Amino acid sequence: MPPVPSFSFVDRYLLQKVLDATGQMPIQVKLDAGLAASPPGVSPIATVHIRDRRALAGLVLNPEIGFGDSYSEGRIEVEGDLVEFLESLYRSLITGSVKSWSTQLASVWLRLMQVNGLRGSRKNIHHHYDLTTEFYKLWLDSELVYTCAYFPTPLATLEQAQTAKMDYVCRKLDLRPGETVVEAGCGWGALALFMARHYGVSVKAFNISHEQIVFARRRAREEGLSEQVEFIEDDYRNISGHCDAFVSVGMLEHVGKEHYQKFGSVIHKVLGPTGRGLLHFIGRNHKFPLSVWVRKRIFPGAYPPTLGEAAEMLEPYDFSVLDVENLRLHYAKTLEHWLRRFEKSEPEVSAMFDSRFARAWRLYLAGSLVGFKVGTLQLFQVVFAGPQCPRLPWTRASLYANEAGQERRSQWKHAMS
Amino acid sequence: MPPVPSFSFVDRYLLQKVLDATGQMPIQVKLDAGLAASPPGVSPIATVHIRDRRALAGLVLNPEIGFGDSYSEGRIEVEGDLVEFLESLYRSLITGSVKSWSTQLASVWLRLMQVNGLRGSRKNIHHHYDLTTEFYKLWLDSELVYTCAYFPTPLATLEQAQTAKMDYVCRKLDLRPGETVVEAGCGWGALALFMARHYGVSVKAFNISHEQIVFARRRAREEGLSEQVEFIEDDYRNISGHCDAFVSVGMLEHVGKEHYQKFGSVIHKVLGPTGRGLLHFIGRNHKFPLSVWVRKRIFPGAYPPTLGEAAEMLEPYDFSVLDVENLRLHYAKTLEHWLRRFEKSEPEVSAMFDSRFARAWRLYLAGSLVGFKVGTLQLFQVVFAGPQCPRLPWTRASLYANEAGQERRSQWKHAMS
Repeated sequence: MPPVPSFSFVDRYLLQKVLDATGQMPIQVKLDAGLAASPPGVSPIATVHIRDRRALAGLVLNPEIGFGDSYSEGRIEVEGDLVEFLESLYRSLITGSVKSWSTQLASVWLRLMQVNGLRGSRKNIHHHYDLTTEFYKLWLDSELVYTCAYFPTPLATLEQAQTAKMDYVCRKLDLRPGETVVEAGCGWGALALFMARHYGVSVKAFNISHEQIVFARRRAREEGLSEQVEFIEDDYRNISGHCDAFVSVGMLEHVGKEHYQKFGSVIHKVLGPTGRGLLHFIGRNHKFPLSVWVRKRIFPGAYPPTLGEAAEMLEPYDFSVLDVENLRLHYAKTLEHWLRRFEKSEPEVSAMFDSRFARAWRLYLAGSLVGFKVGTLQLFQVVFAGPQCPRLPWTRASLYANEAGQERRSQWKHAMS
Repeated sequence: MPPVPSFSFVDRYLLQKVLDATGQMPIQVKLDAGLAASPPGVSPIATVHIRDRRALAGLVLNPEIGFGDSYSEGRIEVEGDLVEFLESLYRSLITGSVKSWSTQLASVWLRLMQVNGLRGSRKNIHHHYDLTTEFYKLWLDSELVYTCAYFPTPLATLEQAQTAKMDYVCRKLDLRPGETVVEAGCGWGALALFMARHYGVSVKAFNISHEQIVFARRRAREEGLSEQVEFIEDDYRNISGHCDAFVSVGMLEHVGKEHYQKFGSVIHKVLGPTGRGLLHFIGRNHKFPLSVWVRKRIFPGAYPPTLGEAAEMLEPYDFSVLDVENLRLHYAKTLEHWLRRFEKSEPEVSAMFDSRFARAWRLYLAGSLVGFKVGTLQLFQVVFAGPQCPRLPWTRASLYANEAGQERRSQWKHAMS
């Protein structure tokens, strides 16, 4: 190959290093203005276009943050399908590539900076969930459910699948009219209102995101459910009182491993020995921190536990795990919907924030989609009950008998939305 | 109360100590020939009749072994319903009574004596499973399935429930004709033969109980399934080769915690990254050894893990836990059937062994029934898959669609037995 005078030996060396780090991925890595490298004999599925030397150096020194930040800033562009590219990248990386020392250092640093104490949690949650509700309205479903949906069939709409998920959670909890429920981490209130509306329960729903709580309270008032559903702006550590059922959908991953003991004791305190509960959370197959870039830019303080870590949290209180279901393919499908809607709304998102924010969120949504698709992320629903719970299901068959579910819901006054 | 001249102060003291240890249980404790004690103001549900001072002293010094052995030897008799008495006892003890120092010492001693190395496992398994098959025929179902059954309704017969369990396991594993299965701990071969007969798979089934393997091989020959099902008398540690699905029903509780790493690596070796598996085992809500008496007399070397411990075993290999179901009520129901049949056959059992053996086994069956009923024991079915498993179920609905299951089975040539 004849030498290209405008590129140095260092450029070529770094470019090759980036390519090597991706294993034998069928991609082309291109430095602006011409220098390109790809594995021999394959036709690339995408081209990673690195626009300047700072981006190139960042990729080599600290690949996760380097790629995430440079992509957000537009200094790296992926020509081709972003999801397809990330899927190929994740699959290449799954087979145990060692993290660079700088990634490891950044990981430890973030863990220290983002501890989930009372104040830290509020700051961490504020960072993500207090982005204006208008932003989430652009790409979530009409009920603003920001957790994994349940698609009875892959062709269900996102709206159908979020309703099906809320109903599935209620059925797994075996809710009955008149019962009391505590919800930890209630988002914009969709599930709490659904439980009250369709299952006739009273709900105390906790959240430390101010924006979400304000929104949820307004919805409760508008629906005439303020008596039945109380939205409380407070930390899970301050939950008190007693309830029949405890539910937490998409919060455990924000609690942080070092606080599981406390979280378990809070659950135990409100449920006593007779209650039942459901935890729905993003998890891992093995202990491994979340992507450094995602923790830095998107979800400060987040940690997805293994099933073993979550189960261990329940051990001291003699809770029996009754049912665990892994819904990771449903989260990949949910994220497909979100990403499609998000990409359609990207001009509005850029106008609302800036293009760096929009690109960062597109990368986060695409990366999460791929994580659930290839299995670096899992989604666990864990149902458990206290040692003296008077009502254990005999089998799970009734969860799948549609008529039974409809009958139970129709006992209650409100119609399905 | 006027003094009873034939009983000493010590007798009365010990009797009261036994009563105290049971909490406020509504029972009467009676020393032979008259001295009795019961909590004031309750009508006893049973009388524990202690026939001599040795039995009384044993109860105080080492309650678990004392009760178990004295009951077996007929030096303690329970007048009233044994299951009802044990249930009341377990419920009193659940609320954290401290074990006596001698029980703790015995527990450690047994752990050391009953390690599950290659030789230890053979000895431990021989102790229980190599009791003559004629004995188990007296009280198990016709297929000789010595693990928790699955009762689609509580009124199903034991035979129906064992067939339903085997079918449920096959459906959870999503077996397809032509696939290969490794079974670790195959008992008398019922499940291996069922999988081959109804799902058209080839099975390599491992067991270190000589008596069971001989029996299973004969059945395979008689059914013309010897080509399809290979029964191998060997330890799980020596399993080699590759298979599509791994199944182990009722063996993990005999592996011993210190060997989980090895067991996990064996599963990983045969499944590779694409396989799927099912573990069915007796477990606990929290880490706690099995009853000292049961380990001493019935199941040497056994340890029922928590769900967290089992999940952790799968972590190093990036297996995804897909589904966990707790079937403890089904094991209580299974044991009700076994106990009823056992009690009917007790004269034959006594003739085959002796009355001490028969009484010990009656106590073990009744105690296990109660353990599953009140929740000191759990029964977990865990389905998992390798990180590159090409076939993950979209939902669990098809497990409960009876027609679908019948259709799938009827594709295969053999009729249901």
